[in-house]
This record gives sequence, structure tokens and C-alpha cells, in this order.
Amino acid sequence: MPELRKDPVTREWVVIATERSKRPEDFVSTEERVEPALCPFCPGNEGCTPPEILAFRPAGTPRDSPGWWVRVVPNMYPALAVEGTLGQSAQGMYDRMNGVGAHEVMIETPEHDKTLATLPAKHLEDVLWVYRQRYVDLKKDPRMKYVMLFRNHGRRAGASLSHPHSQLIATPMVPRDLRDEIEGVAFYRQFRDRCPYCDMVAQELHDGERVVAENDDFLSIEPFASKYPFETWILPKVHGASFARMTDEEHASLARMLKEVLLRVRICLSDPPYNFIIHTAPCHSAEADPIHWHLELTPRLTIAAGFEMGTGIYINVTPPEQAAAALRAVKLDEQAVPA
Amino acid sequence: MPELRKDPVTREWVVIATERSKRPEDFVSTEERVEPALCPFCPGNEGCTPPEILAFRPAGTPRDSPGWWVRVVPNMYPALAVEGTLGQSAQGMYDRMNGVGAHEVMIETPEHDKTLATLPAKHLEDVLWVYRQRYVDLKKDPRMKYVMLFRNHGRRAGASLSHPHSQLIATPMVPRDLRDEIEGVAFYRQFRDRCPYCDMVAQELHDGERVVAENDDFLSIEPFASKYPFETWILPKVHGASFARMTDEEHASLARMLKEVLLRVRICLSDPPYNFIIHTAPCHSAEADPIHWHLELTPRLTIAAGFEMGTGIYINVTPPEQAAAALRAVKLDEQAVPA
Repeated sequence: MPELRKDPVTREWVVIATERSKRPEDFVSTEERVEPALCPFCPGNEGCTPPEILAFRPAGTPRDSPGWWVRVVPNMYPALAVEGTLGQSAQGMYDRMNGVGAHEVMIETPEHDKTLATLPAKHLEDVLWVYRQRYVDLKKDPRMKYVMLFRNHGRRAGASLSHPHSQLIATPMVPRDLRDEIEGVAFYRQFRDRCPYCDMVAQELHDGERVVAENDDFLSIEPFASKYPFETWILPKVHGASFARMTDEEHASLARMLKEVLLRVRICLSDPPYNFIIHTAPCHSAEADPIHWHLELTPRLTIAAGFEMGTGIYINVTPPEQAAAALRAVKLDEQAVPA
Repeated sequence: MPELRKDPVTREWVVIATERSKRPEDFVSTEERVEPALCPFCPGNEGCTPPEILAFRPAGTPRDSPGWWVRVVPNMYPALAVEGTLGQSAQGMYDRMNGVGAHEVMIETPEHDKTLATLPAKHLEDVLWVYRQRYVDLKKDPRMKYVMLFRNHGRRAGASLSHPHSQLIATPMVPRDLRDEIEGVAFYRQFRDRCPYCDMVAQELHDGERVVAENDDFLSIEPFASKYPFETWILPKVHGASFARMTDEEHASLARMLKEVLLRVRICLSDPPYNFIIHTAPCHSAEADPIHWHLELTPRLTIAAGFEMGTGIYINVTPPEQAAAALRAVKLDEQAVPA
């Protein structure tokens, strides 16, 4: 079972992944890495993954057989394991617990050579439904404190398989970055009595220069303090703490916005590697939880070096206003993103 | 002038480096990047860098001419600029200030194909003297709140030139990660009345399994909650807040320890890309500042993907006990690291 260990100074938790532990000779650079000859995510190879947790498939087709159009399976090499208890304990001055959680893979399409940006917006709706169903299901487990939905695209963004997929990791603690975000929202509310993200939506719509795209329900911007070149956020215009509490109209609207943003980034930057992450309310937050859920996308165009790693201060070589102008300038086929 | 912008939620500062601003077509991957035909750090090319700030050179040789064995120059493309005032201002809900600070390059040797690990320990003493002199000098500038000394080795660790060099960035605020560390030390002291790093030195010497190397004054370990495979720290055994307040014996001892650690990492992992960072007291801390200065080295063997970027929780595929055993097992030439 993986182990969680806590830094005694920063109080950050680290996953020590004993299941796929690597020795010095096991590290290969991104360029040298080869994909398996048989893609475990392609239809017909369902036996290469652990048994499916959920799939959208024609009624009557058996589990773990072809026919599905979105399919969820446990990660073959989970960072956190779903069985077991936390078993917190001390080791001298240090603290550890069992690596309990969940690590799932959402296979987004049977088509190996597609990607979210090039799938129909209607299909993205189903991918997002799968996100929501898994999120809601895992929230019920009292051991889980946070459910992180994310996507790695391209090797330099950490994707080890090229077949389109997203991932989910549920953690037995609220991760540091989310805790910082929640505290930051609360702090802002203390002196302004408003949500900072709601203020951001208003100011960005007014300023305009950092806007990438907009529809009835969502706004996409390059944030004022972008850490990375072409960092792009998608924010719901109306305040909501949880990604899982959208109306059907908002859901369809998000699918269109996500497709448009991915397409603009893909065309503008020649299909760059990227990560996106959904920031949403922790599992056990009250309805009044102050967070404003949103999606953060970061193309991986530069390398974080010693300064960034040691300080947490990022050096961004592209002002967000320039990045937004470049993304807005991308010409999209009218068919690509139906209004 | 570069600009500093503050995230309104996390209150993190970001450097928007307008000086070397990049458009979509300017991003090239690490593999495609080419070095300049003429190395600006090689002797004879002193005119390719801004005028030197400090150099160890034979008495009587003119500035910016060959003969030096360690040389410090301003960074040609500084992340922060040394001239100007902070000029803090609001932009609606957002906060910005001028990117005032310092960004210097320490050219560690005239020999292009050497690296710290393969230079004599005596030479490393001079490199460390240069670190200390620049640190002490910049601390006097009342605009500077922190001086970060770091080294990027290899392209995948963010080094754009291969000629051996370290860097220094002085910032007009205490960086988030350092602030977290200072707060963490204070918090630990509140309930234990001891320094967590002093406790760590004691426990690691007792446990032994995470020790990489040891001499009279320094201990090198793989930390219990290592974020990265083969993350390696060098800690002074006796508490001290500032890197700049060592005795001459400790200084020489650190040079030997640094060389030994770099050599073990180099041999064990086939000259991996790495970053190292010196964690030390902020510029204006009281003598009683609780921090315990140390050096953190992180080989860059894996890629931080969406989960790490979204949560701050790292997944480490090599338990530190295994990494320490592998590093200890490296056979070193007795000449390499004199006792």
C-alpha cells in the first residue's frame, strides 16, 4: 500500500508510491519513454485494465467489452489505494498514514487518435457527466476529503499513455493548494464581503484585455497573475462552490466552452502539452462554502527551475494580456463550437 | 521593467517578465533548444556579459578580462531589475509592483566542461565564498527581503547554458515557500520548544536509514517526506539561521560535503539534471530567527503532472530509504573527497 508522509515543517503531505517504486536505473527521460505496443484503453483491450467502474455503453452490452463511448477504470498503478484504513501513526518526530484514497482513469473516447479538443461538444458533455458522477459517488466515502479531477495531455505534461483520458484522485486530506485557496477566499471576504472570483469575473468582463472567450454561463480568461505562459481559466459567471451542482444548461455550456478553449490553445500553440485541473469544494464543506469552482489549464511551455522550486514565485515570460490577444485571434470554424 | 503581480486569492506574487516576453511561436521544447555558438561565460568572452560585479582573479588583472577563476555578472535577461522603486499600485481589485530586485549569475569556473561535482573541493570553497559575499552585500539593500541562491544543472532542470554557473535572485518580498517554512518552524517550536531541523538531525543520525553522508559539521539525508525521487538535503548539524554566518572550518566542511553529495548523485543517476536551492534566513530577520539554514537538492527525474500542480501533493516513486541506500553504495575515489 502506498504511504502518506508529512513534512514536519511545512506540514505538507507526500505520497510515497511503494507499488511502482523506482530504482536509479529505472528512470528514463521523456524522450526515451515508449508506449506499450497494445493500448490498454482501446476497444477490444478491456481486459488490460482493472474491471470497469462505470461506462456509457448501449443497454445490454456486457461490462468490460467494446461498445462504450466513455469508460472509467481504476488506475493500474494507483497513487492511492481504495482499500484499507488510514492507520495514522508516528515514526519518531514524523507522521505517516496509509495511502488510502482513489485513483481512477476516465477513458474519454474509444478513438485512440482523438483528443478532447477535436471531439464534438456533445461528446464532451458525456465526459463531464462521468466526471460529475464519479465525484458525487466518491464524496459519499467518509474517508475522502477531496476529489481532484485533472487531465494530463502530452508526455511533457506527464501523460504516460496517449489515448485520450482524464484522471481522478481522491485524497484523505484537503490538499495544501486547495486549503490555501479556501483560506484566501475567506480572507478576501473578510474585508470585502464578496467572493474574489465573482469580483474577478466582473473586472475581467469590464477590462476585456484578458478575456479569451465568453458564453452565457462561462468566462475564460488569462488570469492577471498568471504563473505560466498561456495559463487559461474557465470560471462560471454565477457563483457556485461545487462543480457537481450545475443545471443541464450550464453543463452543456461548459462542454462548449471547454472545447472552444482547448481548440484555441491547440491551434495557437501547435498542440502543446498541458494539464488542466478542476478546483471545486472539498467533500465535506457546508453549502455556504466560500469557494468559487473553476477550471485551470496550464500549457507546459517552459520548465520550472530552481528559483520557482525554491520560492514558489513563478517567472512568466508571456504577459497574460498578450496571451489572451493571441488566443482570441485564433480563427475557429463556425461548426467547431456551436453557439 | 519586469512587473510583479499578486494573485488576489492565494496572495502569491508572480513575475511577469516583460523584458524577454515570448509569443506563441517563440516557445521551443527543451530538446530543440540550441546553445549560442559563442559561450558568454568562457574566458575571452567577458565582453558578452554585462560588466562584472565581483571576480576572484590575480591581483592586477583588469576587470572583465581573462584570469578569473570565479566571476559574478548581472543576468543578461534579469527576472527582476536592480534599478527603481517598488511603485506599488492597484489595478482595480488587483495589486502590482515594479519588478525590483537583483538577478546575478555566478560563473563557477573558466572551464566550460567542468561542473561543481568534478571541481576540487578547494575550488568549491571559493564558489561558496562568492555566494556569501553577494548574499551579505545584497542584504544591505533595504528594498530586498530575501536572497535566493540556486543552481540549475542540465536543460531539463531549466539551465539554458551548459557552462557551470549558479544564480542569485533577490526579491522585494519573502517568497511564499520560505514564509511557509518560517511559519512551520515557529509552529513546531510552539509545542516542542525545539527546532524541527535540529530534531531531524538527531533522529536521522539515530535511524541511519536515510543518511547519505556525514562529516564533522554537516549531515546529508533523503528527507522522510521527500517530494522527489533522490531529493537530498545538506543540513548543518549545529543550529544556525544564516548561511552567511559559518566559521572557516564549517565553510571548508560544507564545500567537501557539497562535492561529495553532487558526486554521489552524479554517479548513481548518470549525471541527472538537478536544481539545488539554499534555504536561509530572510534579509531583515532578527538574530533569533527560528529558521535552520540548509541546502535542498532535487534531481529532475520525473515530471510534475496535473495532480501535483493542482494539489501541491507530490507523488514520489522512490522511497527515501531506498534512495539513501543507493547513494551510500556509490564507491568514491578516496582522492575525490578529502576528509
